[in-house]
Amino acid sequence: MSTGPRVVGQRLPRLDAPGKVTGTAVYAADFALPGMLHGKVLRSREAHARLLGVDAARARTLPGVRAVITAADVPDVRYGGALKDETVFARDKVRYVGQPVAAVAATTREAAEAALAAIDVAYEPLPAVFDVEAALAPGAPLIHEAWPTYTAIPILHREGNVCNRARIVAGDVERGFVEADRVFEHRFRTGMVHQGYTEPRAAVAVWDTSGQVTVWSNTQLPFEIQNTLAEILALPPSKIRVIVPGIGGGFGGKLRVGVEHFAALLARRAGRPVKIVTTCEEELTAAYPRQSTRVELKTGVTRDGRITAKAGRIWFDTGAFAGSGPGVASVATLVLAGPYRIPNLLIEGYAVYTNKTNCGSFRAPSGPQANFAVESQMDMIADALGLDPLDFRLKNIVREGDEGPTGQVLTAVGLEECLRRAAAAIGWADRRPTADRGKGLACGWWTTTGGSSGVYVKLNPDGTVALNTGAAEIGTAALTGAAQVLAEDLGVDLADISVVSADTFATPFDFGAQGSRTAFAVGNACRAAAADLRRQLCALAAAQWGVAAETLTVRDKHVVGDGKRIALVELARLSQASGGGLIAHGTFIAPPTAYDAKRVEAHVYPAFHSPSFHAHAVDLSVDRETGEVTLHRYVVAQDVGFAMNPTYIEGQIEGGVAQGLGQALSEEIVYEGGRVLNPNLTDYKMPTTLDLPRVESILVEHPSPVGPYGAKGVGEPPNIEPPAAVANAVAAAVGVRVTTLPITAEKVALALSGEATP
Amino acid sequence: MSTGPRVVGQRLPRLDAPGKVTGTAVYAADFALPGMLHGKVLRSREAHARLLGVDAARARTLPGVRAVITAADVPDVRYGGALKDETVFARDKVRYVGQPVAAVAATTREAAEAALAAIDVAYEPLPAVFDVEAALAPGAPLIHEAWPTYTAIPILHREGNVCNRARIVAGDVERGFVEADRVFEHRFRTGMVHQGYTEPRAAVAVWDTSGQVTVWSNTQLPFEIQNTLAEILALPPSKIRVIVPGIGGGFGGKLRVGVEHFAALLARRAGRPVKIVTTCEEELTAAYPRQSTRVELKTGVTRDGRITAKAGRIWFDTGAFAGSGPGVASVATLVLAGPYRIPNLLIEGYAVYTNKTNCGSFRAPSGPQANFAVESQMDMIADALGLDPLDFRLKNIVREGDEGPTGQVLTAVGLEECLRRAAAAIGWADRRPTADRGKGLACGWWTTTGGSSGVYVKLNPDGTVALNTGAAEIGTAALTGAAQVLAEDLGVDLADISVVSADTFATPFDFGAQGSRTAFAVGNACRAAAADLRRQLCALAAAQWGVAAETLTVRDKHVVGDGKRIALVELARLSQASGGGLIAHGTFIAPPTAYDAKRVEAHVYPAFHSPSFHAHAVDLSVDRETGEVTLHRYVVAQDVGFAMNPTYIEGQIEGGVAQGLGQALSEEIVYEGGRVLNPNLTDYKMPTTLDLPRVESILVEHPSPVGPYGAKGVGEPPNIEPPAAVANAVAAAVGVRVTTLPITAEKVALALSGEATP
Repeated sequence: MSTGPRVVGQRLPRLDAPGKVTGTAVYAADFALPGMLHGKVLRSREAHARLLGVDAARARTLPGVRAVITAADVPDVRYGGALKDETVFARDKVRYVGQPVAAVAATTREAAEAALAAIDVAYEPLPAVFDVEAALAPGAPLIHEAWPTYTAIPILHREGNVCNRARIVAGDVERGFVEADRVFEHRFRTGMVHQGYTEPRAAVAVWDTSGQVTVWSNTQLPFEIQNTLAEILALPPSKIRVIVPGIGGGFGGKLRVGVEHFAALLARRAGRPVKIVTTCEEELTAAYPRQSTRVELKTGVTRDGRITAKAGRIWFDTGAFAGSGPGVASVATLVLAGPYRIPNLLIEGYAVYTNKTNCGSFRAPSGPQANFAVESQMDMIADALGLDPLDFRLKNIVREGDEGPTGQVLTAVGLEECLRRAAAAIGWADRRPTADRGKGLACGWWTTTGGSSGVYVKLNPDGTVALNTGAAEIGTAALTGAAQVLAEDLGVDLADISVVSADTFATPFDFGAQGSRTAFAVGNACRAAAADLRRQLCALAAAQWGVAAETLTVRDKHVVGDGKRIALVELARLSQASGGGLIAHGTFIAPPTAYDAKRVEAHVYPAFHSPSFHAHAVDLSVDRETGEVTLHRYVVAQDVGFAMNPTYIEGQIEGGVAQGLGQALSEEIVYEGGRVLNPNLTDYKMPTTLDLPRVESILVEHPSPVGPYGAKGVGEPPNIEPPAAVANAVAAAVGVRVTTLPITAEKVALALSGEATP
Repeated sequence: MSTGPRVVGQRLPRLDAPGKVTGTAVYAADFALPGMLHGKVLRSREAHARLLGVDAARARTLPGVRAVITAADVPDVRYGGALKDETVFARDKVRYVGQPVAAVAATTREAAEAALAAIDVAYEPLPAVFDVEAALAPGAPLIHEAWPTYTAIPILHREGNVCNRARIVAGDVERGFVEADRVFEHRFRTGMVHQGYTEPRAAVAVWDTSGQVTVWSNTQLPFEIQNTLAEILALPPSKIRVIVPGIGGGFGGKLRVGVEHFAALLARRAGRPVKIVTTCEEELTAAYPRQSTRVELKTGVTRDGRITAKAGRIWFDTGAFAGSGPGVASVATLVLAGPYRIPNLLIEGYAVYTNKTNCGSFRAPSGPQANFAVESQMDMIADALGLDPLDFRLKNIVREGDEGPTGQVLTAVGLEECLRRAAAAIGWADRRPTADRGKGLACGWWTTTGGSSGVYVKLNPDGTVALNTGAAEIGTAALTGAAQVLAEDLGVDLADISVVSADTFATPFDFGAQGSRTAFAVGNACRAAAADLRRQLCALAAAQWGVAAETLTVRDKHVVGDGKRIALVELARLSQASGGGLIAHGTFIAPPTAYDAKRVEAHVYPAFHSPSFHAHAVDLSVDRETGEVTLHRYVVAQDVGFAMNPTYIEGQIEGGVAQGLGQALSEEIVYEGGRVLNPNLTDYKMPTTLDLPRVESILVEHPSPVGPYGAKGVGEPPNIEPPAAVANAVAAAVGVRVTTLPITAEKVALALSGEATP
């Protein structure tokens, strides 16, 4: 476009705004069908037990009950992502408190709950393991005795209760430590946290007589759910239609099958539509939270602050099933290496089974945990060396053309700019303006996930354009971003784009709303489709005028050239009258990122595609008496490549920081003896707007050579650095270093009183 | 495909069968949303009256009432097809009994009905006209006084109560009559009939806060309804999503806006979803029935039976609004000319306003009425000349390369074969085996309607294919036919195609399920899309193998060539992993049919595209005492071009003949003083299966050069000839010629008793 962008880069209102701000948008939990039954899931009361029997006979006779299903009623299929270790219901034994044992559908929620209470389950308790240490101890009970026989991607390293160990080896880490003047070893721990989406997982399923099931669900990945349901139901995917009516937040927690399979199985049994919406208790005891971790870091540095070597290990407590664990353990190694020039590395990520709920993915999976350790240690080392933490980072960060930890060549590296601008904005020079007040910095990097996207677009009769995409709008405005690309390239306004999305039958394949990829990948597919549609528009105008199509361009809702112009609305009319209407399609997949395969083992994500770089800075005070932290200001400088819509990127930053501050300061799913102690929003403490500081966003633009108009993924990164930034600021404020998350007031107060921090 | 067709031409089960035969398919009348209100329409009690006032104040206060709308509450917009003469509600005056005056939405149907009863309407009656004669009489009251100011397509000839007069002039008709040895003049009349779809018109509408309305409707033309609603609601079409959940029959009666606009207006007013389903009485008094007609035919023939000239006029009583009248009057001229070599023609079709319900389109609009006249007269002339009616027809019918009435050059003309095979099958040689038994023949031609179709197709993860089309499956199995084309061209099975259809947002534009065009046009769009997808499949396989894509072909669910084969399911996986998934699209529009523009005036359909030809033959008995007709056998020989799926073409033939026999023998909406006397299915007599003979289908194949695999349109033609064939057989059986439809037992008995037929 020779006239410069009109739509991309602009602060335009998102396409899905009106329904959301007025409360009339239909979410999956709102979706209803006539004659619909309500489904409920019976969950294990035991953390690890042999399952002696499930007696549902009495439940089946209760009034209003239309279907009761147990393991005996469903296909004996193991499913899962990298590792197929899950079953619909517990079969031989239960592995965590909350594991599904049976499900019912009834005419009312109350009748369904009464039916659950009428199912008798007999357990024989088994020895259980509730943390990584216990799971890795010699002689620890195995969560999955038979798991060497499970189907898995071959790359995984599996041993005992470890379901993957991914490794990066670069240079010679032992030599690197020898070369160091100082070697620092630290340990960190982080708690299990929930994604905190406002809408619980929900699904409605109905079967037709051709044996096709339609499932309306708030999944982030309709095509993934289609495939998983195909496995579970033993049907070809083309018999499974998954539609996303709307999502009240996902953040990675709605990537994997939640209640869709129960709804589908109950609906098939009952012969009626079935709806299931999870409760808050189910969310906090049996969803897909972020894994708790243990981290060990050993870093060698020269006296003047050059890092010579790093050895790091991170253990993820992935719960009773692998879930996202193998992948998260893998990607964690790149975060744990960090965006630093370190010639000698030995980084390991472990996913470990325990008798807890199956953990999943949460906005930048592994990012906050690993970054908390890395960036806390950076400050601890700087402190020990007497260096300014900013200067220490600037000495070591990666710059344009450097190699990443696995040998990928880094381009469009905006990290230095991010660090300098965040520091400047927070007033880094004045780090401790008053007593008990301090500023903290943290920086990091993250990937833009690949995977393919296809779109089809058509010209509407009024000259507007329909965008048909398999991706779901999960609240990030990413589809508005993709629509901006389409509008830009077609010379129309953003408001001229209407979106149909996330229907496995009606829309093209999409890898889904995950990994900060939607605007990036769907946007690029839109570029391809727009090019195709522009070609067709010019050809149609050229045929009208008897000129060569190559002389024409699309601009300002017209095809122009040869001294003439014709409106798209007129071309829409002509195309329907003369050529069948104008349709175009486009597909995109990110090209592979080259890396050094010799440096990695059992690795699922060996490189970061179009990586983003970011620096966070916080200014806070600590109450020495209570240990309470008060947040004053928060600054994020993020290299977004190209700011497709600054308003919504700022929204992503503000939301991501809020979530990160929750994990930093207050959120944790607390287990005791395999049971969650705080399965409610009173005791599981998410921050409210009153707890949050003003968040200032600085959008840095080092364009990705692949992203649409240079855009990189922006959704996940803001969630990564808050814990480390807060920990560093607390240390700066009151000299207390808390190495476990969350950094609760109690921990700070204990540390200030001289007692050991937990 | 070098191996010969595997899917096209086969008797394969239709894709939508299971839901229909088990009763679980969701039709528009079944469709429901939570919180939905029920809408009802208040209709005029007067045929022609000044509207003095509509007082809805009391209705608005009744319990359960959520919206009451009158003309004062809706945009003052005139809409319509060729002629924009309709308003949502009567404004200055009412023009027929049944015209909408107000509408209400309430929490129950009963509350809505109570609200209707509480609306007071004041009328001042005006002189009315109830038939064509009265409407054309000098000084007749005008139905639309201001109508010269209405928007209309400029081609229309409008005068007095005539809203179009289309004309064909060929040769010199007066000279033709001079050249004739005998000139015959006859008059005919036909009654108003309803399409008899089993599901009444139904719609559910809901608005979102972005000002977009979604309407689920059993329309045959979602994109047409989208445009009409855009006019009525004063919105761009892209704000209007029309989805067809299912249709219980249409037959042309669901082409135009029915209750969609009331549902949308009420839903906007009420802020809740509104559903409207018409009653049987509304269907028979205020839908879009087939026009009653008067026909005058004057035909000159030589002694040996060669037709030298024909002058014909047909008047359509189109009711109080033009509706389909101008178009139907136009197409009628081609039917009235007939598939005969006639050098001199003067044919006129008139659409005339009266104070009756607005008539519309019904399976082969104008076909049965005009053909009844033409083919009755052919027998009457043959009888007068002492010629065998078959021989007389064979002397005059068009053959390959002949010109049609407007000068189009006819190809793929299977008429002679149809006539000879139908006659042979009915046992024409033995025309009157017993007393009061007789056989009748009739033949005709019909068009395959053009208009554009677009489809998009994608490869599913299991190697099956999704077909996304804007056309609705209205019960004809036409989308199964299109899917057969796609399956054939992609080397997969019919069962491998899943269809998503008829959604103005999610599917490409389609001219819609009308005019026997769906399998023809969507099938051709599928051919284009399949070619595109084949190209992509071969390119993907070629890239795998490092060979040239041109050496590969798609066959039997594989790409094969270079001594290798790879399954589509594997290519689906590869395409998602390496290229964004495979999507393709295709569009089609029938090329224009050349004709002699000098021969036509005010003509909307000047030529028949890919015309079909057909001959019907019936064997029946007449009870001389009661006049009752008993049908023994019925034979249809139809040139379908290529029989895409013989089973479903036979189904179309059987259904079309049943409808045609209803019009022939028993069906008529009877008016008296502007009021329908028989608005129920007891008094409006549709034939049941017990009334119908065995129908034998002979599929003749003279391939269209344009249709997919040679197919022509097949859905409408079977409805055309039954009235004429029956009239001719009754004459053959008992020597009585009934020239008005329906040929009731009463008319036959009266004629047999020597009294004049009505």
